[in-house]
Amino acid sequence: MLTKNQVPTPALLVDLDALEANLTRMAERVRQSGKKLRPHAKAHKCVEIAKRQIAAGATGISVATLAEAELMSKAGIPGLLLTSPVADPLKIARIVQTGAMVVVDHVRQAEWYEEAAAKAGRTVDVLIDLDVGDHRTGARSTEQALEIARAVDSAGHLRLKGLQGYSVHGSHAGDFAERKRVSEHAFAGAIETRAALGRESLAAEILSGGSTGTWDIDLALDEVTELQAGSYVFMDLAYRRVGLDFRHSLTVLATVISANHDKFVTVDAGLKAFSTDRGYGPEAANLPGTGYRWGGDEFGYVDVNGGAPRPKLGDRIEFIPPHCDPTVNLYDRIHACRGENVEAIWPVMARVQAPL
Amino acid sequence: MLTKNQVPTPALLVDLDALEANLTRMAERVRQSGKKLRPHAKAHKCVEIAKRQIAAGATGISVATLAEAELMSKAGIPGLLLTSPVADPLKIARIVQTGAMVVVDHVRQAEWYEEAAAKAGRTVDVLIDLDVGDHRTGARSTEQALEIARAVDSAGHLRLKGLQGYSVHGSHAGDFAERKRVSEHAFAGAIETRAALGRESLAAEILSGGSTGTWDIDLALDEVTELQAGSYVFMDLAYRRVGLDFRHSLTVLATVISANHDKFVTVDAGLKAFSTDRGYGPEAANLPGTGYRWGGDEFGYVDVNGGAPRPKLGDRIEFIPPHCDPTVNLYDRIHACRGENVEAIWPVMARVQAPL
Repeated sequence: MLTKNQVPTPALLVDLDALEANLTRMAERVRQSGKKLRPHAKAHKCVEIAKRQIAAGATGISVATLAEAELMSKAGIPGLLLTSPVADPLKIARIVQTGAMVVVDHVRQAEWYEEAAAKAGRTVDVLIDLDVGDHRTGARSTEQALEIARAVDSAGHLRLKGLQGYSVHGSHAGDFAERKRVSEHAFAGAIETRAALGRESLAAEILSGGSTGTWDIDLALDEVTELQAGSYVFMDLAYRRVGLDFRHSLTVLATVISANHDKFVTVDAGLKAFSTDRGYGPEAANLPGTGYRWGGDEFGYVDVNGGAPRPKLGDRIEFIPPHCDPTVNLYDRIHACRGENVEAIWPVMARVQAPL
Repeated sequence: MLTKNQVPTPALLVDLDALEANLTRMAERVRQSGKKLRPHAKAHKCVEIAKRQIAAGATGISVATLAEAELMSKAGIPGLLLTSPVADPLKIARIVQTGAMVVVDHVRQAEWYEEAAAKAGRTVDVLIDLDVGDHRTGARSTEQALEIARAVDSAGHLRLKGLQGYSVHGSHAGDFAERKRVSEHAFAGAIETRAALGRESLAAEILSGGSTGTWDIDLALDEVTELQAGSYVFMDLAYRRVGLDFRHSLTVLATVISANHDKFVTVDAGLKAFSTDRGYGPEAANLPGTGYRWGGDEFGYVDVNGGAPRPKLGDRIEFIPPHCDPTVNLYDRIHACRGENVEAIWPVMARVQAPL
């Protein structure tokens, strides 16, 4: 069997014990709440993990892109929800073929989906995407949401299923109290819009939203019907910094490739091995008392502080990444490890662009 | 023929007219200087571009990783130089098979290469990697460089070819004068070490280094024998900010997927579509008067300032990335365009980890 030490670095590892603990914890808690879980695959882009989420009771899988929808659909993953609005008729025709439920935040998108669904002879389930405070995507008012909902409801090949309200700011707000405030405020608007749809007898069976950062907050909101949390499977430094306590299952393995100085060494993992969007670098999981500095595309410096021993040339160091989703996006495969053994190698979906 | 408008977004495009102009400009200038060009493939990770560089007169191709060396070697690209020290015997055995010239910054690395070369019955060309000021990799002193050079020289399956001195800080230092100061200072140390090798009759035929940021500076240094510049093929915002004037050949094509506000729209290109290591975001090439804000993994905001017209839902926007190398690293293919037509689709090497 392959061991961690034989894997060429930099390499992405997942600790199966920690992954399984995270999967079980989330699944049980959602089950107890009486809600549904549609975990987001944009975190892992990996069919093997999606299958484990479904096996643990998830009602489906959320995806962010056409490519993710096609990958999961081909793998037979049920209950897909594409959480991003799309505005390209060529893409929309392909999305319809995946069978995914979709979101729209403009009447024009509903028209594009209706045209594509009619042409394919299929019916597409649709949520109205609401802007719950980030102004990133989503209908900007209850009035606009109603206008779109009426268009969906009257379209022959679309089926109105409800609403999506996702708060980007809620996910990483400073502490539990602040996340609770942001998320409750975000959903308050969505709940108001849902009531307005109800008054026009427009279906709003689903209210989907919620990130890993607000998972326990949103499970306590009566009107939320399902959670889209994704990062809980891996955890990362960003979520730890705001107080989340899922287990760190994801690490990047690197090798010390230069060691000519007393207080630091250089590893073969730089800004092509970790996402840099959080500003700060990764943390050495197995070397307490060290710090990481970016050293370019293929390099990082590991500073040895205090009395920690300096790693040697050829030593391997495991790092917890700052942000899991875009770090996974930098690798073609995940090494699924049990202790030192690599039990399986899971492919990560192709990079960001959809296949031609 | 496929046109830009049919390509699913986000997509990586290269403008062939601009690419060819950059290739020709660099090749001619290096030829006039009497030096050699071994352009760095870590910028493009693309065999098709490496082939064009060789056709334009390059003496070989520099690579940063085992995976890049294997890719280029299999494609028959001559004159490979692996510019990173390696400290993993399993990797070193594979590197020897690629026929690449390598760098070492420690006697132990020379021993590993000697063992692997002897086992494979091959001879490996070796440069001593020098620390010319960044302390990232490289021998830390002339004494250490001499110690390593003697070890290489006396090894039966290694052939000492010279020195590498690459200055990270030189590449993006503030302006021309500052880059000139940093680069000349960096090479002064390398030239001193080269003289010391000469006094011991240790071969130092090659002195390799130089980035796109210092290309015209380093071509004026008598002792430098070859240039490793890579980013010149694409250019990016970072190099433009420090005054470089190669043409912008590389763009990311995105689609407006939400347009519910007056002063901004949302596009489908976020921090999985552009590298974020420069801090600042991309610039819309075809929409002067707009700004970009990060909007998460799959989203970006485009702000419309002053009197610029607001893009519409479904419009396509082409962005110049902040940093070319790690942006290319986010895509599986490059769309080679002539005007609006996609003339060819070039594969980008698999992500960061070497194949098993």
